[in-house]
Amino acid sequence: MSINLTGIAASAGIAISKAFRLETPDLTVEKTIVENVDAEIQLFDAAIEKSKAELEVIKEKTKQDLGEEHAEIFSAHLLVLSDPELVDTIRQKVKDEKVNAAFALKEISDQFVMMFETMDNEYMKERAADIRDVSKRVLAHVLGKPIVSLTEINEEVILIADDLTPSDTAQLNKDFVKGFVTDIGGRTSHSAIMARSMEIPAVVGTKTVTENGDQGVQVIVDGLEGNVIIDPSESELAEYRQKLADYEEKKKEWAKLVHEPTKSKDGHLVELVANIGTPNDLEGVINNGAEGVGLYRTEFLYMGRTELPTEEEQFEAYKKVVSELDGKPVVIRTLDIGGDKELPYLDLPKEMNPFLGFRAIRLCLEKDDIFRTQLRALLRASVFGNLKIMFPMIATLGEFRQAKVMLEEEKKKLMDAGVDISDSIEVGIMVEIPSTAVMAPQFAKEVDFFSIGTNDLIQYTFAADRMNEQVSYLYQPYNPAILRLVKMVIDASHAEGKWTGMCGEMAGDEIAIPLLFGLGLDEFSMSATSVLPARSQISALTKDKAKEVAEKALQLNTDEEVKQLVEKTFL
Amino acid sequence: MSINLTGIAASAGIAISKAFRLETPDLTVEKTIVENVDAEIQLFDAAIEKSKAELEVIKEKTKQDLGEEHAEIFSAHLLVLSDPELVDTIRQKVKDEKVNAAFALKEISDQFVMMFETMDNEYMKERAADIRDVSKRVLAHVLGKPIVSLTEINEEVILIADDLTPSDTAQLNKDFVKGFVTDIGGRTSHSAIMARSMEIPAVVGTKTVTENGDQGVQVIVDGLEGNVIIDPSESELAEYRQKLADYEEKKKEWAKLVHEPTKSKDGHLVELVANIGTPNDLEGVINNGAEGVGLYRTEFLYMGRTELPTEEEQFEAYKKVVSELDGKPVVIRTLDIGGDKELPYLDLPKEMNPFLGFRAIRLCLEKDDIFRTQLRALLRASVFGNLKIMFPMIATLGEFRQAKVMLEEEKKKLMDAGVDISDSIEVGIMVEIPSTAVMAPQFAKEVDFFSIGTNDLIQYTFAADRMNEQVSYLYQPYNPAILRLVKMVIDASHAEGKWTGMCGEMAGDEIAIPLLFGLGLDEFSMSATSVLPARSQISALTKDKAKEVAEKALQLNTDEEVKQLVEKTFL
Repeated sequence: MSINLTGIAASAGIAISKAFRLETPDLTVEKTIVENVDAEIQLFDAAIEKSKAELEVIKEKTKQDLGEEHAEIFSAHLLVLSDPELVDTIRQKVKDEKVNAAFALKEISDQFVMMFETMDNEYMKERAADIRDVSKRVLAHVLGKPIVSLTEINEEVILIADDLTPSDTAQLNKDFVKGFVTDIGGRTSHSAIMARSMEIPAVVGTKTVTENGDQGVQVIVDGLEGNVIIDPSESELAEYRQKLADYEEKKKEWAKLVHEPTKSKDGHLVELVANIGTPNDLEGVINNGAEGVGLYRTEFLYMGRTELPTEEEQFEAYKKVVSELDGKPVVIRTLDIGGDKELPYLDLPKEMNPFLGFRAIRLCLEKDDIFRTQLRALLRASVFGNLKIMFPMIATLGEFRQAKVMLEEEKKKLMDAGVDISDSIEVGIMVEIPSTAVMAPQFAKEVDFFSIGTNDLIQYTFAADRMNEQVSYLYQPYNPAILRLVKMVIDASHAEGKWTGMCGEMAGDEIAIPLLFGLGLDEFSMSATSVLPARSQISALTKDKAKEVAEKALQLNTDEEVKQLVEKTFL
Repeated sequence: MSINLTGIAASAGIAISKAFRLETPDLTVEKTIVENVDAEIQLFDAAIEKSKAELEVIKEKTKQDLGEEHAEIFSAHLLVLSDPELVDTIRQKVKDEKVNAAFALKEISDQFVMMFETMDNEYMKERAADIRDVSKRVLAHVLGKPIVSLTEINEEVILIADDLTPSDTAQLNKDFVKGFVTDIGGRTSHSAIMARSMEIPAVVGTKTVTENGDQGVQVIVDGLEGNVIIDPSESELAEYRQKLADYEEKKKEWAKLVHEPTKSKDGHLVELVANIGTPNDLEGVINNGAEGVGLYRTEFLYMGRTELPTEEEQFEAYKKVVSELDGKPVVIRTLDIGGDKELPYLDLPKEMNPFLGFRAIRLCLEKDDIFRTQLRALLRASVFGNLKIMFPMIATLGEFRQAKVMLEEEKKKLMDAGVDISDSIEVGIMVEIPSTAVMAPQFAKEVDFFSIGTNDLIQYTFAADRMNEQVSYLYQPYNPAILRLVKMVIDASHAEGKWTGMCGEMAGDEIAIPLLFGLGLDEFSMSATSVLPARSQISALTKDKAKEVAEKALQLNTDEEVKQLVEKTFL
């Protein structure tokens, strides 16, 4: 009989194939007392070297396949292997206690993992995950039980695992791995994000797939709905083959829209643009027919390094993006760092509530040398295309005015020095803090545009950390409270002849799209892979109907009521 | 020449007297190797016993003077002295290393302090402060240099200190200590809160008062404005003597209002009520002429103990408060715990952003056995006076409905068992999360009243942790964003014939009061000591003028503009 599991739909699509269960080798370690300490240390050093070599290969492959941004994590892994604090402590333990290298490695790395894990800080917790991933690899080499290499998979499979480490995911070959299912993980886990980039259907967090999915058994992965069927019946197979065919058909339909404008059934135009993290993402933007970039997160320029990027480095990156988009709009967000996104070299104080802390524009206004360097790079790049500047985490008009003054000062200095600068740069703000939505009428007189950042706006509006499982029920994008704030912003911008975009997850969500279109949103910025489905969805809407439903939704009581209304009307 | 310092006005009033600088004895410790280990341990044990005895006295005095709530901290201090983890480790160090007790004590307690301090958690940081305070006391005894006892002050002085520990503050004798000034601390530090309860004028955070304030020099403390003048000139003395006389005069005027209703110049009535933490606070409520209790924080019933309070204990506390208020309204807030306010015995998970975490109603709805026990105690107490029930941290209508259902279920069970319950209990919510303000029109159809909790509402609306110094500039109560949210709530309640109160700091703030009165706030809940000044202020206002100014304020751009408008018009 078939087994039906549900999990989190982490990457869209449907796949049907046989299970390849990733077996973790038995890495149990016994403590032994060794005679030949030097031999143990040589064994350990050799394992480190082998692991480094493997990681270099994986890193290179990732850079090629997925871009610099995704390869960064392996630089972090390589750093772990070069960290004398860890490596020397292990060697020392072997020497001092005359124990086997495997035992010393296990003991010391577990200690490090525990130390980092108990720190109340996402950055440190990621370091714990890195150390865990890397030391497993080294331990496998010490024990002579190398980890199964996913690169060796040479037939079509559905990968089943407790969890996939970043190094696992990076090794996946799209031609053979048609989908994957894990016991743990969430929609924003690293492997889920990579799956979406690679367009591999995936369901995560099923809790029991490794228990139920035997090697070689047939598996259906429904990454659209989050369902997994192990050993499906004939009727289930038929149903999902149809669903797969329908989805492929849809994808073909979507592909036809790649060079089309985004137009509703009754001819209303909106702009569908993409969120990017690095210039490497541009290929996806263009292939998916986005009409520009609605959010270029500049943080990656600052991450995975030991000092700030120079003005020149930044200028080159911005120039590349705006030039390649060839006149299409590119909204570049200034540095949004601090809080949970740390830059070790800035040495920021620890905070009790980093999401309510010293981050983004707050930090930039105080450390204005960092900010002014970025502003100069942006100003200089402005002549190479259609560049717009956006400030994140603006909470008060005072902050916006202060940032704007700094921008004008740098502009004047550059112009006095004879540097060419576009005279039509739009300057806008993220609306991700409730105060700014409420004060939108006043802001609208001074900014050129708004872009609503729903991930943060939702978390602050409901006072619920979106990374905290215990309050995840309060992440309610369709709640009329959010819709009302969105409406305030859109109405305020239109009253002053300005435009409003949205660059949070919600902009690409099929329940939200009709509501946002009805409320008059001008620009929708989303993952590149969501652009074509969204364009297709909008082409079937009419403005009047969407408006009517949106107005009705504003008067409802709960998230759930709004969801039902949209589903009933449009889906 | 006089020296003028500014700090934070921590407790209102003006005092002029000579400086008493609290000299901390030199507690420097040298490491010595001791022959007679037993003698060292005896010395240490004796110091522990002396410290315990002193703390018992201080605790008892505090309980008498200030009530149970303030005495709690000394129970925590006494616990430190009984903690074998700390005390035995010190004894062990003396034995193992044959070192002097003072050295062992210093080393081990510093380690504990550091360990707790680096934890990213307010609760643990408080534990660090406790250990520091207590071990200083023990060390002083070990070294035979007992800490100066503030109880020995027998003439009028202004106390000057780097900082006051809770045990220092508790020992202050109001008859002699006319005011105090510290180098460090903030408005919400423990000593500042105690100063307000004791009505001792205080300025904290002056940074340099101990450097500048020599023993015996004359000092002016202006706890109204946060100014300190050391060695004032004749003209300064004259000015402040006048200011003091004016303030005393004002206090006399205020005292006349103690049995009066709160009425504006043109006859509009509002309700001025007080915030309390324990039944002990009732004396202040009555002496200051509050018209009831607008916020009874029930957390103290759950704190400083090792297990949950029983239904009976809670019933007795609630009954006492409602009975003593004799028909005046008492709004009791259900348990607001979790996040930064931990109850060790609940063993809640650590959170990355406790202010956005699993707390208050979120926790109560999940751990509903705790919640239902409290609800039953409240229902049973309802027949003894005018009891209203208020749920904290409500973010969605779904949460309110769920809490209400639990209340109704418990009510039915009690009534079926023949228990008497009032049939007119009002059930309302705190509005401290932006979503709830935005959705006020929908909430107003289902709740009996709103009470706006501005401390949290401000922190969430601007996404700025109110305990984090680096973003403290975003704590903007007068920002039009806050005023607009307040207006939404008041208007929504009135449209449904319900009432709106406010129980945050803002309700007693002299800039905010005319605006809130103008916006139509029905009930102002504040520290008991603020009630009379507020009543006096309101008696000078007219509704039309206040309304006109409030409307103007709503259209302004910044916090500062609003402040200036109110000052210009009313102050």
